[in-house]
Amino acid sequence: MLPPELIAEFAAIVGAAHVHSQPAQLLAYSYDGTFQQRVPDLAVTPGSTEEVAAVVRLCARERLPMIPRGAGSGLAGGTIPVSGGVVISLTRLDRILETDRANRVAVAEAGVVTARLQAEVEAVGLFYPPDPASLNQSTLGGNAACNSGGPRCFKYGVTKDYVLGLTVVLADGRILRCGGKVLKNATSYQLTQLFVGSEGTLGVITELILRLRPLPRVRSTALALFERLDDASATVTAIVAAGILPATLELMDGTTIGVVEDYLGLGLPRAAEALLILEQDGNDEEVTAREVERMAALCREHGAVEVRIARTPAERNDLWQARRAVSPALGRLRPNKLGEDVTVPPAAVPALIQRVRAISEEVGLPIPVFGHAGDGNLHPNILFDRRRPGELGRVERAATAIFRAALALGGTLSGEHGIGTLKRDFMVEDVGPVGLDVMRAIKRALDPQGLLNPLKKLPPTDEPARSGFLSALPSLEGIIPDTGHPAFAEAGA
Amino acid sequence: MLPPELIAEFAAIVGAAHVHSQPAQLLAYSYDGTFQQRVPDLAVTPGSTEEVAAVVRLCARERLPMIPRGAGSGLAGGTIPVSGGVVISLTRLDRILETDRANRVAVAEAGVVTARLQAEVEAVGLFYPPDPASLNQSTLGGNAACNSGGPRCFKYGVTKDYVLGLTVVLADGRILRCGGKVLKNATSYQLTQLFVGSEGTLGVITELILRLRPLPRVRSTALALFERLDDASATVTAIVAAGILPATLELMDGTTIGVVEDYLGLGLPRAAEALLILEQDGNDEEVTAREVERMAALCREHGAVEVRIARTPAERNDLWQARRAVSPALGRLRPNKLGEDVTVPPAAVPALIQRVRAISEEVGLPIPVFGHAGDGNLHPNILFDRRRPGELGRVERAATAIFRAALALGGTLSGEHGIGTLKRDFMVEDVGPVGLDVMRAIKRALDPQGLLNPLKKLPPTDEPARSGFLSALPSLEGIIPDTGHPAFAEAGA
Repeated sequence: MLPPELIAEFAAIVGAAHVHSQPAQLLAYSYDGTFQQRVPDLAVTPGSTEEVAAVVRLCARERLPMIPRGAGSGLAGGTIPVSGGVVISLTRLDRILETDRANRVAVAEAGVVTARLQAEVEAVGLFYPPDPASLNQSTLGGNAACNSGGPRCFKYGVTKDYVLGLTVVLADGRILRCGGKVLKNATSYQLTQLFVGSEGTLGVITELILRLRPLPRVRSTALALFERLDDASATVTAIVAAGILPATLELMDGTTIGVVEDYLGLGLPRAAEALLILEQDGNDEEVTAREVERMAALCREHGAVEVRIARTPAERNDLWQARRAVSPALGRLRPNKLGEDVTVPPAAVPALIQRVRAISEEVGLPIPVFGHAGDGNLHPNILFDRRRPGELGRVERAATAIFRAALALGGTLSGEHGIGTLKRDFMVEDVGPVGLDVMRAIKRALDPQGLLNPLKKLPPTDEPARSGFLSALPSLEGIIPDTGHPAFAEAGA
Repeated sequence: MLPPELIAEFAAIVGAAHVHSQPAQLLAYSYDGTFQQRVPDLAVTPGSTEEVAAVVRLCARERLPMIPRGAGSGLAGGTIPVSGGVVISLTRLDRILETDRANRVAVAEAGVVTARLQAEVEAVGLFYPPDPASLNQSTLGGNAACNSGGPRCFKYGVTKDYVLGLTVVLADGRILRCGGKVLKNATSYQLTQLFVGSEGTLGVITELILRLRPLPRVRSTALALFERLDDASATVTAIVAAGILPATLELMDGTTIGVVEDYLGLGLPRAAEALLILEQDGNDEEVTAREVERMAALCREHGAVEVRIARTPAERNDLWQARRAVSPALGRLRPNKLGEDVTVPPAAVPALIQRVRAISEEVGLPIPVFGHAGDGNLHPNILFDRRRPGELGRVERAATAIFRAALALGGTLSGEHGIGTLKRDFMVEDVGPVGLDVMRAIKRALDPQGLLNPLKKLPPTDEPARSGFLSALPSLEGIIPDTGHPAFAEAGA
């Protein structure tokens, strides 16, 4: 609890209604989309970039940790106030400032929910492609801080590819505006890109200039089932080699198919080792349909045992049912899950899935794998029951083995969720001691007091991760049941 | 001239044959694609990342400025050794280490000439899109350091969009490897992107991991002439709004058309205010041709007075003749030119061209404008004769006015050439004092001695540019005739 005089100073900046200091209020800022929890000392909801800047200056003066927060739907613990301090929630910065049709650019505040921006620009024929599964909850600022992805990102690129400019409050409260409404920029260091993916450790993003595209007018979808995972993978390679860049190329492994089939009884063959959802969008109905037919043919050529093509929106909805059912289906199997997010070079997808299968057997926990086959970003979901003694230790062994398997295959710890607290202790194994040193030098240069989202992304030492890293996370037994959190239902997708 | 003992130390690292200390040798490392010149104290051509690292350690110990250099075809003075010191030429690092077809990735050393990589990957059906006009001279490392673009970048993105990973020698000689063969990466700060576009001021790029695409199989081209610039601009907007993403959308203004017509007599109408070259590529001949027909129709609908469509490679070659003739045609008009590279929001292209026309009249110098209409990146080329007294002052007034016009329209100083020495003094007007402060903080964090490519990109003060900034550049009257330099013929394109 902060001294009342200090709380009054925050209230003088943002208004008393926007300072949250009561335990019941603070609870709302204590968790994210993982199972972690810690209550902050204070939470504030400023209403403008200038108020954010004044809050940051006050925190800097008082040496209080600052935790920038969007919707709290993150999947890596990035907004858990593990160091205590002040949560700066950006939800009141929720204005879409401009939809510039002539330049195909949107300007929006950080707290705008991603789906809202998408709907607004789509209404005028424009398109903001990044589509994290959390898009109905998560915010543009949070998406930028985590460099979020989604199924459409193989064709269209991730959040970083759409952020042309940012307004950022720096650690000392100064306001930086970088980038602009320009599609090419060789002027400054790429400061915009430095803040994208920095998970609130270098500054507080308050406003974004986002690139838009023309909205594709048509969409066509197919689903294919394979008895052999390698066949599905060879199909993905063949599709890309044929020069087709599908809007979506989603994969579910055999374990996931089984779990979904148990749940919904869609008639998916139990012998299937892989399911692909293939989608193309475009402006010409005939061309788009032809590309999907071509992908379907490639599936058959590569041994698909069943290929379904949607001819109507209702049929398309049916095809997506299997994919959408994944999260609720997993929830039925075990009460808890750790949704992972490793990325490997695309050709290493089958090897990673095989490795996860072996790890699943070794630790005795189900680990269904699904994700974005085109770009090698997979979500192995470790299912468990935290009430069972020793199960958390097995989760930890599985997660450790999955991280190391991805790294050994030339991959990386995170494709679209970020590092937060969850994978921080594995950073040295991914970026190496020199990489960590460079990251720390940049962190010190921009946040010399170390107050911006402390203990996130950057490990305190270069030691390799120790056993117990999961159980050491705060409040694993927190009072928020993780399956009840809205972000959970979408987690890892 | 450095002491012989020190030169011997360099020779011990790279071999005596790769240390260049004689005046005639040093001349080769004294210039770039601009009219600037200064001879370095020493030039070395190391043969490996490890040798680069040892050279950097030695320079750091001796506090010698280090100037990383690719082919020296840069258009902003980025490799001119204005501070003296040691040029580190990367031309011997010229190995293409891997073309990984399964993952669509190439791994290459920094000194590989861009066109060579393109040819090598195209031979196996892959495609490296960035296509700066200098691609037959310039290197992958130089392209990355300057974040180079080219005509294909509207559809395919610039160099930064293709660099997945880098090997960089840091200012203290440590070797950083960042990124990898992964298409999505939310793990580290975006260090790869921080080095891309940093113009050798933060580290020496020695190796690159580059994303490739499948090679488009067909290509179709059209040329359209407009009597009114606004009609051409409206056409560009209409093409994008129609959901067409052309491979190339090049614009030449009326002045450029006139200069080319004087040179080649292609029968281009003298009344034309704008010429567009529209190209599409793809895998389906019919679809690609249909999109070009559609673009041609949009040109006619928006008032094009003439539209030509190429049906054969020979016809395509004819259409490109006008665009390729620009540089030699300009060279006939005046012996010297300053090729600019501003970028504005796409809808501001006509306003910028109008403004340049007015500036041209004000200063009494021809300033043809051409460039990449789709992404708002234009190249106003200020033509002059440096032998005429006072002409350089007029060039300077014109350049200053063009920079400020672009900034006033929400644009930026450079789209694809970088800042170097040439535009450095205008940086504060573009990125602002806070932006400069952040850049300097990063520079200090990574290069505390300030030895990496000093006096480039970052201005020494926050003062606005003074008159005389051009004539203050070193050796404007240098002995290299600028029209004779291979990079010059392509300059600004």
